[in-house]
Amino acid sequence: MSVLKEINPNVKNLKQLASVVLAREASQINEELREGVRKPYKEVIDVSSGDPHRAGVKPLSFVRQVLAACTYPQLMDSTRLPVDVRQRAQRLLGECEGGSVGSYSADGSQLVSRISEFIKRRDGGIPSKPENIYVSPGSEWSFTSILKLLVNSKASPRTGVLTPVPCQSTAIMSIALLGAAVVPYHLNEEQGWELQVEELHRALESAKGVCNPVALYVINPGNPSGHVQSRKSMQDVIRFVSEKRLFLLADEVYQDCVYGEKSEFLSYKRVLSEMGPPLSDTVELASFHSASQGFLGECGLRCGYVELVNLDPPVMTYGYKMFSMESSVPVFGEIALDLMMNPPQPGDPSYPLYKEEIENIRSTVVQNVKRAVEVVNSLPGFCCQPVQGGGFLFPRLYFPPKAIQKAKEAGMQPDTFYCARLLQQAGVLIGPGCENGQKEGSHHLRFSIMTSEKTMEELLRRLTCFHSQFMKDFS
Amino acid sequence: MSVLKEINPNVKNLKQLASVVLAREASQINEELREGVRKPYKEVIDVSSGDPHRAGVKPLSFVRQVLAACTYPQLMDSTRLPVDVRQRAQRLLGECEGGSVGSYSADGSQLVSRISEFIKRRDGGIPSKPENIYVSPGSEWSFTSILKLLVNSKASPRTGVLTPVPCQSTAIMSIALLGAAVVPYHLNEEQGWELQVEELHRALESAKGVCNPVALYVINPGNPSGHVQSRKSMQDVIRFVSEKRLFLLADEVYQDCVYGEKSEFLSYKRVLSEMGPPLSDTVELASFHSASQGFLGECGLRCGYVELVNLDPPVMTYGYKMFSMESSVPVFGEIALDLMMNPPQPGDPSYPLYKEEIENIRSTVVQNVKRAVEVVNSLPGFCCQPVQGGGFLFPRLYFPPKAIQKAKEAGMQPDTFYCARLLQQAGVLIGPGCENGQKEGSHHLRFSIMTSEKTMEELLRRLTCFHSQFMKDFS
Repeated sequence: MSVLKEINPNVKNLKQLASVVLAREASQINEELREGVRKPYKEVIDVSSGDPHRAGVKPLSFVRQVLAACTYPQLMDSTRLPVDVRQRAQRLLGECEGGSVGSYSADGSQLVSRISEFIKRRDGGIPSKPENIYVSPGSEWSFTSILKLLVNSKASPRTGVLTPVPCQSTAIMSIALLGAAVVPYHLNEEQGWELQVEELHRALESAKGVCNPVALYVINPGNPSGHVQSRKSMQDVIRFVSEKRLFLLADEVYQDCVYGEKSEFLSYKRVLSEMGPPLSDTVELASFHSASQGFLGECGLRCGYVELVNLDPPVMTYGYKMFSMESSVPVFGEIALDLMMNPPQPGDPSYPLYKEEIENIRSTVVQNVKRAVEVVNSLPGFCCQPVQGGGFLFPRLYFPPKAIQKAKEAGMQPDTFYCARLLQQAGVLIGPGCENGQKEGSHHLRFSIMTSEKTMEELLRRLTCFHSQFMKDFS
Repeated sequence: MSVLKEINPNVKNLKQLASVVLAREASQINEELREGVRKPYKEVIDVSSGDPHRAGVKPLSFVRQVLAACTYPQLMDSTRLPVDVRQRAQRLLGECEGGSVGSYSADGSQLVSRISEFIKRRDGGIPSKPENIYVSPGSEWSFTSILKLLVNSKASPRTGVLTPVPCQSTAIMSIALLGAAVVPYHLNEEQGWELQVEELHRALESAKGVCNPVALYVINPGNPSGHVQSRKSMQDVIRFVSEKRLFLLADEVYQDCVYGEKSEFLSYKRVLSEMGPPLSDTVELASFHSASQGFLGECGLRCGYVELVNLDPPVMTYGYKMFSMESSVPVFGEIALDLMMNPPQPGDPSYPLYKEEIENIRSTVVQNVKRAVEVVNSLPGFCCQPVQGGGFLFPRLYFPPKAIQKAKEAGMQPDTFYCARLLQQAGVLIGPGCENGQKEGSHHLRFSIMTSEKTMEELLRRLTCFHSQFMKDFS
């Protein structure tokens, strides 16, 4: 007997992510390895998600020292922690209710002020108002909250959101879970995953009679595509949303991760502002950032923020209501976000070590990108666009017809089939492109470049070895 | 110009919580106090939410030491931390991906196994299956997730959830935000807030033609009512949901907090199981627990779990999909939850201090309840039922007609009016009963009993003083 006569259809229609199934399989393999089962590898390398610490990147000492001192303030008596660490911890703890990180997060006025100062510095002095900033347990959470404002679950036709292909998979699911329609627009792979405005027009046209598009979602730097938009491209997007009266959702969580020599991160807020009125006063924008991505990489702490621009005051009121009722932000996450935006400065005792660590991570990632693109492009069937930013490589793989046939027999997409074999045979967990969306008939793989050098080298070694066998098996 | 032609009506219909407005006001007062503005008090006492650390309760040393060592593992080199702390931190860190609390939470198999062992111990040996347990960023989050399975936003008439009056306010809002209908049933205040099954029948009857009730929500120990259900009362509830084919949502987050001499916490899982077949095999139940409430009180870390009983396997599949895509649980919260369920044992170096601290908190809270009920009941107009468990006092206040008139003129509920004055004049932030629901024409106040002795005494002193002036002003 079930009292659930009818499960929520939005939940029912969710597709099980291939990567969830693969991750469970990876856990089982690791369990077997722990139990002493012999395999051609000693542990699974998991680079399917953008999780730097999981892939061997070390946490920043300054961040962890401050967090430890906030957790167990008795540590501040000891001179083992640098004086600026202790001062910072003291200050942050002073802002916690009852002086404890175990209290519900404080109303956040001090944190949002510091976020607004960070944004202002980042955007060359363009003002940012604290009252337009909401802190949350991560950018995915912020994204869903803004969608809840935009998506009317009872509307007919459904609300639609223009969404890039490829796209990070959690965004696609968040849209689906709210009962809205994903309206795909394709980034141009051959042009380095460029966002082309003609394609936005085509996508919008395709939605006619199907759904009612209210927003355009962009990810810059691209996830998992790795492109970085130019000012010109962003201006085109801004004019498009203004003309079509769409809300602009800008995922900018990889803003610190730009590697291309000619690339530069510009925020949508800045580009919009510098376009001047009437655009700068009218285009409605939400920009997302997080403590998980980038070189801080504290995914496990869960914190992010969204800055809202040009929203109608009554809409802001609803937003405020929703955020104030819904978000209890993990306090450790808030502290990490704060430290990310306000790292040690020259002259601080912690500065030399901080600088060394962060530059080390950056140069490792730059080197990883170079090495990975080089190696992958040297393998038969692979074709990887230049990676200018972000956290992933997303190479295309041209499968031999035999492999496509074999995958079909196994009831899998070819890319999932490849990932499942790679995991089993070589102990490498990467993500299949079908989760991110890809042009009909094309196939891709996704893996993180936020790894230690050692992890990347081992990953490329295993991939190279596996791939030549794979191509032999199916040629 | 707004592109938001139509805001999601579920969001639009959300009422702004009075306590959010009051909390903002409290922040402003504290800000003024910091700036040197003179008031008859030096700081605001905030006991509006069940947040122990905010109200002067000290975190448990063992928990904080383990967390600090996990955060900054270099601390494990020092003998400053007890050896069992270091061992525990080592083990927990070994379960984190990449050995860092900054990685996304691991697939949780080890944590859920330990939760299922905890449940089994708690329930006198009744088995608990790890695959029926989902960890989440707090019980509120788990509750909303289960609701997402149950509530079909497109159904007509709307899905309904039988909900106690009084009820913790976040649950009411979660139901509303998903577009479901709250079907109120009243706890019997005069009978110590007893849950009476005739009232459930009345409530269900009242929903006819209005909505389609699919679930009954119970809170035991009561929040904010402070009652603890007897086995007999729980059996009645179980028979009722079985007969009416309702899903049972059991909020049991205050399971450790029972003070009544004749009261005992029994889980719904246990009572159901001990009723035997066919009930024990058929009634669908979700039981919620959390690391925020109770004597651990780590609200800021954000972690909880839900155990599901007797769900159809296909429904479990949807649940699994939803939890696996949605929940990135804060890793610090997971660790706190783990430590709550597996505290130091006799013989461990940390045991004596742990035992002293936890007994200290417990006896303080027991004493707080006694003192607070005594003092409140001695004040004119107040009437407080015995508090057997939970985290709050929820006394009834009979307002003088003049006060009711004055509140009306100010556009406020009388209880909100009282809270606003209490905050302004005495620097005490408590919650108005209107947020929790109350019988038409009755008024209540809500405040936490999870405080230090000092905070409670000061709170009662300020309340007593304010109240006699209030009654004078409006008599």
